[in-house]
Amino acid sequence: MIPEKTIERLSKYRRYLLEKLEKQEEYLYSHELAAALHLTPEQVRRDIMLIGYTGTQRKGYSIKELIDVISKILDGDKKINAVIIGMGHLGKAISNYFSIKRSNIEIVAAFDIDSNKVDRIISGIKSYHVDNLDLIINETDAKIAILTLSPAGAQDITDQLVYAGIKGILNFTSITLRVPEDVYIENYDMITSLEKVAYFVKESIDNEGTL
Amino acid sequence: MIPEKTIERLSKYRRYLLEKLEKQEEYLYSHELAAALHLTPEQVRRDIMLIGYTGTQRKGYSIKELIDVISKILDGDKKINAVIIGMGHLGKAISNYFSIKRSNIEIVAAFDIDSNKVDRIISGIKSYHVDNLDLIINETDAKIAILTLSPAGAQDITDQLVYAGIKGILNFTSITLRVPEDVYIENYDMITSLEKVAYFVKESIDNEGTL
Repeated sequence: MIPEKTIERLSKYRRYLLEKLEKQEEYLYSHELAAALHLTPEQVRRDIMLIGYTGTQRKGYSIKELIDVISKILDGDKKINAVIIGMGHLGKAISNYFSIKRSNIEIVAAFDIDSNKVDRIISGIKSYHVDNLDLIINETDAKIAILTLSPAGAQDITDQLVYAGIKGILNFTSITLRVPEDVYIENYDMITSLEKVAYFVKESIDNEGTL
Repeated sequence: MIPEKTIERLSKYRRYLLEKLEKQEEYLYSHELAAALHLTPEQVRRDIMLIGYTGTQRKGYSIKELIDVISKILDGDKKINAVIIGMGHLGKAISNYFSIKRSNIEIVAAFDIDSNKVDRIISGIKSYHVDNLDLIINETDAKIAILTLSPAGAQDITDQLVYAGIKGILNFTSITLRVPEDVYIENYDMITSLEKVAYFVKESIDNEGTL
């Protein structure tokens, strides 16, 4: 099993490599990849060696080959189905974002409690009432849930998701959720990202003041 | 200056501590904080020692005191103004998220190019046409920009933001942006988060198969 942080970096490498491929570029050096992603070239070389790929000294990595090697690891052979819980603005933004299929992950259903948002297609995805959670997750064999609902009911829904067979959760709610050990949870908190930016902006403004 | 990863963890500690405070809890041990956030107790203790706080052996950390110490570092004394670029679903989701003011960061304006989304209040925030970017950023003294626009125009807008005096960017677009060294950029990529979840779900399913 590859460590979490490496998987995260591999995903970012691939995204950057895909941008380069779109621009018809063929090769790139580890230091270019490192600079673009604020990493050290050593880190990049270590990660890429870990997945068993080597470039050439003269030209660096083949962009296309490296994308293929990373994709084999990240995507595997199987398609994985995901569901979205909560079709507010964030749920819709995520649906739109993934309507351009980019990997082996497919969003197969959405859930909400608002009668205006259920039993219809929203942003290209069939939306159901949460009462049908267990049924639809079993029917679609979904293994991932993306939580964009309000914090109040999030733990209760999480318990239901785990019971229905969900094995991975991307948590956009602002609370800490309890899950069994065999369920992988990735918390994403917009506040943390914004607080990080704010901290470094303040540091930079303060430093200007002392010059 | 405190390292990026530490700032990120401090923000997460505070969020968790605020949850505990709401539940009227008074003390917590480093190992509880560590377990909730998937860190080692050593890491938690090192971070908290770094910011000059110590708990008691018997009771652990005082939740209220630790929140105060972290807040002094993350928030500072000054309020920082932020703007949102792009008032699609994601922009609106972010506006709603921050309408409950939780820190010293305030969203003071939004921008879009769609005539239906400008010169009006959306999700509680005044929205302007991007043509007014420079003017409004100067008037509001905004230092942070949250980018939720489509990738196509993102680099051009970024250049304008930097020119207008923006010092920190939270980038939700799926492309790599070039900024000068004194501008802090935090890239958030939903695809990376989802790919991480998918990878660990696949590993877990594969392991089940071999049991």
